[in-house]
Amino acid sequence: MKKFMNTAETMVAESVEGFVSAHADFVVFGANRKCVRRRHLVPGKVAIISGGGAGHEPMHIGFVGRGMLDAACVGHIFTSPTPGQIVSAIEEADTGAGCLLVVKNYDGDVMNFEMAAEMVAGRHQVEMILACDDIETGRAGDGRGRRGVAGTLITERLLGAAAEQRVPLAELKALGDGLSSRIRSMGVALSGVALPQTQRTTFTLGPNEIEMGVGIHGEPGHSRELFSDADTIVSHLAEAIFDDIDQSTDKVLLFVNGLGGTPPAELYLAYNSAHRIMMEHGLRIARSLVGTYATSLDMRGLSITLAFLTDAEFSLWDSPVATAALRWGC
Amino acid sequence: MKKFMNTAETMVAESVEGFVSAHADFVVFGANRKCVRRRHLVPGKVAIISGGGAGHEPMHIGFVGRGMLDAACVGHIFTSPTPGQIVSAIEEADTGAGCLLVVKNYDGDVMNFEMAAEMVAGRHQVEMILACDDIETGRAGDGRGRRGVAGTLITERLLGAAAEQRVPLAELKALGDGLSSRIRSMGVALSGVALPQTQRTTFTLGPNEIEMGVGIHGEPGHSRELFSDADTIVSHLAEAIFDDIDQSTDKVLLFVNGLGGTPPAELYLAYNSAHRIMMEHGLRIARSLVGTYATSLDMRGLSITLAFLTDAEFSLWDSPVATAALRWGC
Repeated sequence: MKKFMNTAETMVAESVEGFVSAHADFVVFGANRKCVRRRHLVPGKVAIISGGGAGHEPMHIGFVGRGMLDAACVGHIFTSPTPGQIVSAIEEADTGAGCLLVVKNYDGDVMNFEMAAEMVAGRHQVEMILACDDIETGRAGDGRGRRGVAGTLITERLLGAAAEQRVPLAELKALGDGLSSRIRSMGVALSGVALPQTQRTTFTLGPNEIEMGVGIHGEPGHSRELFSDADTIVSHLAEAIFDDIDQSTDKVLLFVNGLGGTPPAELYLAYNSAHRIMMEHGLRIARSLVGTYATSLDMRGLSITLAFLTDAEFSLWDSPVATAALRWGC
Repeated sequence: MKKFMNTAETMVAESVEGFVSAHADFVVFGANRKCVRRRHLVPGKVAIISGGGAGHEPMHIGFVGRGMLDAACVGHIFTSPTPGQIVSAIEEADTGAGCLLVVKNYDGDVMNFEMAAEMVAGRHQVEMILACDDIETGRAGDGRGRRGVAGTLITERLLGAAAEQRVPLAELKALGDGLSSRIRSMGVALSGVALPQTQRTTFTLGPNEIEMGVGIHGEPGHSRELFSDADTIVSHLAEAIFDDIDQSTDKVLLFVNGLGGTPPAELYLAYNSAHRIMMEHGLRIARSLVGTYATSLDMRGLSITLAFLTDAEFSLWDSPVATAALRWGC
């Protein structure tokens, strides 16, 4: 297992420090480095806060900035940030209009974000949204529901854009909840990943195998299949998404996300397959996003996300955003 | 060798088609798909044109847009575009103020871009800049000089910004030539790459080996060394760059580039090492860039680029740019 790192213990801290140095024009560490927050907070705006385990970069720190997140907390690799980190982020980012916590639906994250919300009750007005776009974990039927994966960034973007326009907390909460049935993702891996702490690979694939339905924690998916051409693989992902999503309109945002070790050329090729399949399905691709945004360490793989949005939501998507990972209009 | 592709023959065409679909708001195919160009060309502005083999995405098509390139030609994998493609790009992109060709210093590219320039002589005013930032190929002493790698994007960005401000062709040529001694890069690989055409790996590394001094064509570097921690690897790259670059000021642009299969978290960690080393060397990091911009297919590896720029050049860097890969200020 070769990775660019010094020690497994310091890997996350050094990487986040590099991120904050590289983007010092618009992000800073919060007190005691418990969170990464916008350098210039906006008084009177609801603070949008997210976070989760490390290993998914640029998610979420790469989304801190104008028009998206006000603060993000980073835990150890694939491990929730602590309630203390989240409380610190709430205290720093809340400028009086309250906070909306965007939490990927994993037990550890939900528990710690809920605990933090309880700890600040009475002092800060806090609401919470669960991101749950991963169709595979929904199909697992273990009662815990769908987990949050790449599609989480769409929720964060739309909420961040609306907050920038001074939409109040209760309305943001309703906007976020309303998105949950209209954003769905599914992932595929060409390789497992090795955890820096243990040097162990989470699963191993043969030269002709792929893993369908992977999430973003190096975990195996729902089935091991024979490696195939991109059209076949992307079609499999797309069909599974069509079966699970609430198709409220025919206008979609199509998002192809790299899982860490997949080069841009292959992501664009997969986008090309997905674009054709969506058109054949009668959909209009109103917006596109292609890149490495929500990773599973250095996994070779990708995920496809579809989001059926309203015209008002597409306008939010288009409004100015200035973060390390997403940037347009300013 | 598992890659997201359909056939080796159609891989490049499908990937570029996906790119153009995903970014249709600001790029279009040129006639007969011979180049990718800005959707809205700017009359009276010098056209900046680049290109090269496929396999380096997002370079160069990802740099087409306001404030950078007007057109880019894509060859087969690691193969120069044809003179016919380049002629077509010149004919489409020249709106009357002439063209500047930015060419990475490889025999095939130089030959084909020169041939294209000859073919349009008398009809279009054309100048050419050679990008030659790779210190390793300079050290090889084979008389062909340094090749162009990731640092090429800095030249393209500065020339594109100046062209947007209506700087005339002769001055752009002088600006480009003046940059060549002040931009240097060096790369390291943790893995070789497999060529889609042959399914062969260009070189194979053991579990404890790394390849120092790699370029962006999957070729071996100048020495195979033992895998080490990020600080040691980055220090090796930085010292080699310090020895070869014209250090005209103490203000630098520090650029950490992923070679295709390296996740953002590791790039930021390497940036953190590089940042510390540059500070210890007495440099001021005036601007930073961290990401996957010039790839060698899906190679696990990275390169460090340093650019010693003047204040006027930093202002050009900061001016608005709107491309798929670089975007700020608009």
